[in-house]
Amino acid sequence: MSAVDGARQSWATLPARKALRIARASAYADGRILRSDRIVEALEALIEPGDRVALEGNNQKQADFLSRSLAMVDPAKVHGINLLISTLGRREHLDLFERGIARRVDFSFAGPQSLRMAQLLEDDKLEIGAIYTYIELYARMFVDLTPQIALVCAEQADAEGNLYTGANTEDTPTIVEAAAFRHGVVIVQVNEIVDKLPRVDIPGSWVDFVVKADRPYAVEPLFTRDPRHIGDLQILMGMMVIRGIYERHGVTALNHGIGFDTAAIELLLPTYGEKLGLKGKICRNWALNPHPTLIPAIESGWVESVHCFGSEVGMGEYIRARPDIFFVGRDGSMRSNRVFCQLAGQYGVDLFIGSTLQMDRDGNSSTVTLGRLAGFGGAPNMGHDPRGRRHASEAWLSLMTSTEPVARGRKLVVQTVETFKAGGIPTFVETLDAVEVGRKSGMPIAPVMIYGDDVSHVVTEEGIAYLYKVDGEERRAAIAAVAGATEIGQTAKPKVTADLRARGIVAYPEDLGVSPLEASRSLLAARSIDDLVTWSGGLYDPPARFRSW
Amino acid sequence: MSAVDGARQSWATLPARKALRIARASAYADGRILRSDRIVEALEALIEPGDRVALEGNNQKQADFLSRSLAMVDPAKVHGINLLISTLGRREHLDLFERGIARRVDFSFAGPQSLRMAQLLEDDKLEIGAIYTYIELYARMFVDLTPQIALVCAEQADAEGNLYTGANTEDTPTIVEAAAFRHGVVIVQVNEIVDKLPRVDIPGSWVDFVVKADRPYAVEPLFTRDPRHIGDLQILMGMMVIRGIYERHGVTALNHGIGFDTAAIELLLPTYGEKLGLKGKICRNWALNPHPTLIPAIESGWVESVHCFGSEVGMGEYIRARPDIFFVGRDGSMRSNRVFCQLAGQYGVDLFIGSTLQMDRDGNSSTVTLGRLAGFGGAPNMGHDPRGRRHASEAWLSLMTSTEPVARGRKLVVQTVETFKAGGIPTFVETLDAVEVGRKSGMPIAPVMIYGDDVSHVVTEEGIAYLYKVDGEERRAAIAAVAGATEIGQTAKPKVTADLRARGIVAYPEDLGVSPLEASRSLLAARSIDDLVTWSGGLYDPPARFRSW
Repeated sequence: MSAVDGARQSWATLPARKALRIARASAYADGRILRSDRIVEALEALIEPGDRVALEGNNQKQADFLSRSLAMVDPAKVHGINLLISTLGRREHLDLFERGIARRVDFSFAGPQSLRMAQLLEDDKLEIGAIYTYIELYARMFVDLTPQIALVCAEQADAEGNLYTGANTEDTPTIVEAAAFRHGVVIVQVNEIVDKLPRVDIPGSWVDFVVKADRPYAVEPLFTRDPRHIGDLQILMGMMVIRGIYERHGVTALNHGIGFDTAAIELLLPTYGEKLGLKGKICRNWALNPHPTLIPAIESGWVESVHCFGSEVGMGEYIRARPDIFFVGRDGSMRSNRVFCQLAGQYGVDLFIGSTLQMDRDGNSSTVTLGRLAGFGGAPNMGHDPRGRRHASEAWLSLMTSTEPVARGRKLVVQTVETFKAGGIPTFVETLDAVEVGRKSGMPIAPVMIYGDDVSHVVTEEGIAYLYKVDGEERRAAIAAVAGATEIGQTAKPKVTADLRARGIVAYPEDLGVSPLEASRSLLAARSIDDLVTWSGGLYDPPARFRSW
Repeated sequence: MSAVDGARQSWATLPARKALRIARASAYADGRILRSDRIVEALEALIEPGDRVALEGNNQKQADFLSRSLAMVDPAKVHGINLLISTLGRREHLDLFERGIARRVDFSFAGPQSLRMAQLLEDDKLEIGAIYTYIELYARMFVDLTPQIALVCAEQADAEGNLYTGANTEDTPTIVEAAAFRHGVVIVQVNEIVDKLPRVDIPGSWVDFVVKADRPYAVEPLFTRDPRHIGDLQILMGMMVIRGIYERHGVTALNHGIGFDTAAIELLLPTYGEKLGLKGKICRNWALNPHPTLIPAIESGWVESVHCFGSEVGMGEYIRARPDIFFVGRDGSMRSNRVFCQLAGQYGVDLFIGSTLQMDRDGNSSTVTLGRLAGFGGAPNMGHDPRGRRHASEAWLSLMTSTEPVARGRKLVVQTVETFKAGGIPTFVETLDAVEVGRKSGMPIAPVMIYGDDVSHVVTEEGIAYLYKVDGEERRAAIAAVAGATEIGQTAKPKVTADLRARGIVAYPEDLGVSPLEASRSLLAARSIDDLVTWSGGLYDPPARFRSW
């Protein structure tokens, strides 16, 4: 044994490197406050070639003053960085690769920029580390992708660097923690620098620099769905979900994905759900962003609690006036937190329901389609059966089909799809586009969003397939039975379908006591954004683009 | 549509109720500081019958001044509370039930108190809500088990209630966040109240009261294993793991469970691993508490990073002197965090390895044995294949056996067991004791720790079964082939075993080039606690009970 073998000069190279960065940037700072007009030079002084840079950019809020400034640095000074980012959502994110400032990216979602990204990949201007769910990417920030630089945003800071992130907490504390405690430099753009914060969300001890942005950080109203666009098929599917899934399994704690299918369900609770006598029995506790379409259910007394990943533009005053429902601080504004809400969505609730763009005959589904390298954000984290779960609930146990001594329950993972998309394109397909996208982009596995064996229920306008009850060929037959007039649907054999219906494996509306005639927009608790504002007593303040009055 | 149906008097009943509690307790407080000598009365003023009380008590640190005080309240005033606690580890935790102060418990682990707990359950003095992994319990604190009261501990506080949790962060910020933003009252016992904190870990904005404890909070050196107790069989198994799993699959990021099996592996890296030329190729990034047995590997340059759930008694100065390895703050002391480390363990690393007490022929395993209602802590969260994972790595992909277009990799979940426990009791059994324990205690499912279908490799002193390669009967045969002289092992058929070995499904030491003759204690990099102190250059300061000099 010898402690000398492998001895090294220093065990503090990382703090020393950080001290050098900070010393270089001090020319552009007054204490913890960086000069806004010298931000580009400050970033050049702080960032070294090849650094891992965690840039806050998610499906809603964006550290856009910092990303715009980063795109302006001199590539001779800063190049080849590895960008860690939740959502590649802005033009300048890809300019970083165009200009050679960044080379490699680890990310979760690239919706609006996915076409350009595919092009940069083909031109060898960009390398993909991997595509993650949000919390996988954060997890690796505590393992082997620890950031040397964190660029994040907050509402306000004080002179000591204490931060108020306000209602849109989202990823900020997680990224800051990963960098701050691994000798990374934490730089925060803020809308304002103030003397006294309404509350401290992140302590100044974790922050190196704050900089006042040229304008408030960018934020998108991503979770707002105008009820005007909800059609009769979505209402029919919503009725089936309430009747055939929420009521049947006693679902009290749940998460809804984004989309008109789930918005329809939210707006049916105070009408159709009420008529069925389900208030207080289902849908009490939510892990969900503050969807405006949830307002009527809240106002009608359906909802006990909502914990949020982030906030939603226009919902601030409403949330502040409903402290019994939302998680709020002593100052009255909301506290959201993506990691805790994803944790709640994975381990704390019994049901995830979301829509998809394609599904194969085994129930595998994806929102990745040809030419689009979109990624999934958070859906796979909630849209799977979490095998690390050990506590039981009524809903979870109701999916237990085995009588083995070590049998257990499972999570309800519900996928809603209309059998055809706009333009008559079938949703049910032989092979997911994701398979070809993955092959073409050289991805190690196909970018499947939700795996078929994790899906417990598929809902279409034709009916519900209770997939958790069956395996193999019967599972395929159950999917075909609800796949309508698509080619997959046409493989359904009437006798087999009749048997599946008799055994409760497939249910059509009439099997559930749901009348398609009743499925009309008059059943929605709100039929417009204006209705939602009225329900909220004028507290909901929708963004201009959603106003029609 | 009517906003009037279901209208309610107030949407702020929770903040109002909190304000009342705080007003009642103000008689015992000076600002945010509660009087230590009136703590029992203060708790009586703050807690209402039936409250959900989150009491910080985990496998290491304990808010024991608060738990001892809580056990002294008048049950006529405070009764029927629902205790939310990670580890029911102290005598007074169960006194709460004996005295009627608490009625129901939601928990993760009850090691030292599990016998008494079973008795209280039988006497109908205690109800179990559910048994969780740590992070499932936290997840529900953001859904339907939001705490009205949080009783936690920290090293230091200032007069504004800002907290320094120091190296043992663990659960504290999570419990505080769940309570603080849902109108719960946050009460923190601290070792000291100071003018200036070394750093702020939790902002005072989230804290209602601090109270100076009668003595520093209790903390256990749970992750210290004396190398003196590592035997030749554990060394042999450790060599097989390094050769047959870590090297073969290229495992760079990993988590080790507690135990002598994994301590042996840690101590073999600088000797056996070095000889195999594996330094830098395996075991670089760890999600792990600061195990003292990892010191020789760190000193020999094997380890790039260690992120921790909590700290370990005696490791403070060593960690402070190795800031390149551990996550530390600007003040030099460690920042741990159980949620982020569990997240890293679930989604960020490729391998979990742990020991168990019993395994059935399908590979299901449990540490719950007759008469003991122990629970599992964090193991199931890391000891399963996380189906929400979407990013690939070399190790993860190496377990992909299917050629389907939607095939994916999987996590390495390794279980190590000696075929017989002390006293000749077989580890491999027909039916887990957990099945009977579950039935007797009226649990909805049997308390299985790791499910067989999540286990990728089983390692015994006989060899390794590569379970991920096989299903059904072949899987059972592979387990039997390494189950030695147990009844299950005796069902192995020599011809079948020979075939499994030829196909790489089972490997015995000779198949791996591992010589049992070499497996002796002389191969350990440290053979005593004293050796570990020497390796650390005198920085590791073991607790008295581990000192023999």
